[in-house]
Amino acid sequence: MKELLNKIKQMNNPTVAGLDPVLSYIPSYILEKAEKEYGKTFKAAAEAILEFNKGLMDALSDIVPAVKPQSAYYEMYGLEGVRAYYETIKYAKEKGFYVIADGKRNDIGSTSDAYATAYLGKTQLFGDQGRAFEPDSLTVNPYLGSDGILPFVKRCEEFDKGIFVLVKTSNPSSGELQDLVVDGEEIYVKVAKLVNQWGESTVNETGYSAVGAVVGATYPEQSKKLRAIMPKTVFLVPGYGAQGGTAKDIAHLFDKDGMGAVVNSSRGIMCAYQKAGAPGEAFCEFARKEAIRMKEDITSAI
Amino acid sequence: MKELLNKIKQMNNPTVAGLDPVLSYIPSYILEKAEKEYGKTFKAAAEAILEFNKGLMDALSDIVPAVKPQSAYYEMYGLEGVRAYYETIKYAKEKGFYVIADGKRNDIGSTSDAYATAYLGKTQLFGDQGRAFEPDSLTVNPYLGSDGILPFVKRCEEFDKGIFVLVKTSNPSSGELQDLVVDGEEIYVKVAKLVNQWGESTVNETGYSAVGAVVGATYPEQSKKLRAIMPKTVFLVPGYGAQGGTAKDIAHLFDKDGMGAVVNSSRGIMCAYQKAGAPGEAFCEFARKEAIRMKEDITSAI
Repeated sequence: MKELLNKIKQMNNPTVAGLDPVLSYIPSYILEKAEKEYGKTFKAAAEAILEFNKGLMDALSDIVPAVKPQSAYYEMYGLEGVRAYYETIKYAKEKGFYVIADGKRNDIGSTSDAYATAYLGKTQLFGDQGRAFEPDSLTVNPYLGSDGILPFVKRCEEFDKGIFVLVKTSNPSSGELQDLVVDGEEIYVKVAKLVNQWGESTVNETGYSAVGAVVGATYPEQSKKLRAIMPKTVFLVPGYGAQGGTAKDIAHLFDKDGMGAVVNSSRGIMCAYQKAGAPGEAFCEFARKEAIRMKEDITSAI
Repeated sequence: MKELLNKIKQMNNPTVAGLDPVLSYIPSYILEKAEKEYGKTFKAAAEAILEFNKGLMDALSDIVPAVKPQSAYYEMYGLEGVRAYYETIKYAKEKGFYVIADGKRNDIGSTSDAYATAYLGKTQLFGDQGRAFEPDSLTVNPYLGSDGILPFVKRCEEFDKGIFVLVKTSNPSSGELQDLVVDGEEIYVKVAKLVNQWGESTVNETGYSAVGAVVGATYPEQSKKLRAIMPKTVFLVPGYGAQGGTAKDIAHLFDKDGMGAVVNSSRGIMCAYQKAGAPGEAFCEFARKEAIRMKEDITSAI
C-alpha cells in the first residue's frame, strides 16, 4: 500500500483506471483485426482485449498511478480470457503501474490461504516457488469473517502486498445487507471496525495499513462516517463517473495531504472516445484526456 | 438443480466429492512423474492435478452424483492451474457428474453479469457464442445484495443452471457477521429469506428452486432453523468429516424423501489413502471406499 501512496504523491493523482474490457468498449478496427486473424473465438477476444488494454496503459502510464483489471471480464472469455488477465497484470507492472486485481475473492481459512497464495504470495512447486498472478493487491469479500481474511493479511505482511475489503459497495442494493443495523451500528460499520483490527499490525510510516476498504462514491453520507471510523485505511472508491458519484461526493474521503483514497474510473476512461463520438483510432487520446480531466476534477475538489 | 436431484435419487447418494487438489494430497508417484516430465513448473503441477482428479472421478462416477472443484486450488497454479480447472470440469461432465464450480463469485450488477456469463451462460463472440467454463452451478456470495445475485438467477432460468448462495458457512469465524442479530433475526436468516425471494420464480416440479444455499455441517442448530425457513432450497453442506460435522449433525437437513441437501467431502475422500497409511498407488481404491462409507453413514442417518 506504501507503493500506491508513493505513486499517488509523485503523480499528484489519486485515481485508478479500471480495465473492464467488454468487447463493445473496444474500437472496431481492433476487433476486426482480431476476428480476421483468429476467427470468432475466445483467442480473438483475448487478443483484442490485450491490444486495447496495452494501448490504454501506454496512454496513461505517466499520469495515472494504478490500474484495476476486473477478473469477471476476463473469466468470461475462458482460458484465453484468463491469459489476457495475466498478461494485462504483467504489462501493467512493466509500465510501472500499481496493480489492484479486482477479484473479490473469499472463502474459509484454508481456501482463502490458497487464494492469498495465488494473488499475493508464492506457490510451492516441487521445492521451488513460483508466482501464479503478480498484482500488488486484491479485493476481498468479508462475509466469512476473520479466518477468511487473515491468510490474506499474512501475505500482505510477508510480501509487502495489500488487500481492499468490501465495506460499503457502490451498487443500488448494497444496503440490503450492509445497511442493516445491529445494536445501533450498521453492518458496514461492523465490517469497518474489523478492517481496523485486521490492518492494525500492518500500519507503517505512511500512517496507513495494508488492509484497505472498498467504499462506494455513490453513498457520500456513509463514506463520511467510514472515513472517521477508519483513519488508517486506504479507501478504494468505485462509483465515480458512470455510476453517478461526483468529485464533491468523494472530497471528504481524503486526508489533509490529499492521501488516503484512490478513486476508480472504468467506463469513463475506456469509453471516452465513444462518448465524444470520436473514431476508434483515437481511443488512447480520449482516454488520456479523460484521465487528466478526472485528475483535475478530483484534485481541485480535495 | 433438477439434474442434481435426479442423480442423487438414482444413486441414492446425497453427496458431492470436493476436488481441492493441494499437491501434498497427490500421491508421490504422480508428482514425480510430472516433475520428471515438466520440471518444477506450474505445468507439472497442473498435469499432476489432472491425473489425480481423473483417477478420483473414474473411481467415483458410478457412486457419487456430483463433484465440486474449488477454484482457489487451481488459481494458485496460475494459467496452467486454471487450465486444469477447465479440464477437470470438462472431464467431470464427460463422466456424467453434476458439476458445482466453487468460486464464491460476487460483484455489482454489471460485473456479476460477466461472472454469470463466464460460469452459467454463453459469451457473445463476434456474433457467435461460446461457453467459457461449463459447470452446472456456481457458489456465490450475497454481501452486495440483490443486484449482485439476480444476473446469476437470470442465467439459471435461461440455461437451466443453479447457484448456491453463502448463507451460514462452516468456518469458525462465520458468526462474526453472519450471526449478528438485526430486529431479532440473524444476518444468516435475513440472507435465507433473500434466497427464498431470489429463487421463487425458479421453483419447478421437484419442489425446489434453482437458487441453493451453502449451509455448514458444523452448525447444526443454525442449519435446523434454516431448513425450516428455506423449504424449497437445496442445501450444499460443507464441513462434514475433516471439518468436524457428523451424519447426525446433518440428518435434519433432508426432507422425508431424503432430498433437499448434498453433503460435500473433499479431504476425506481425496486423502483417504493417506489416512489409511496405504501406498499412493491405491488412492482410487481408498477414495471409493470412503465415498461408499460416507454414503452409508449419511443415508442411514436420514
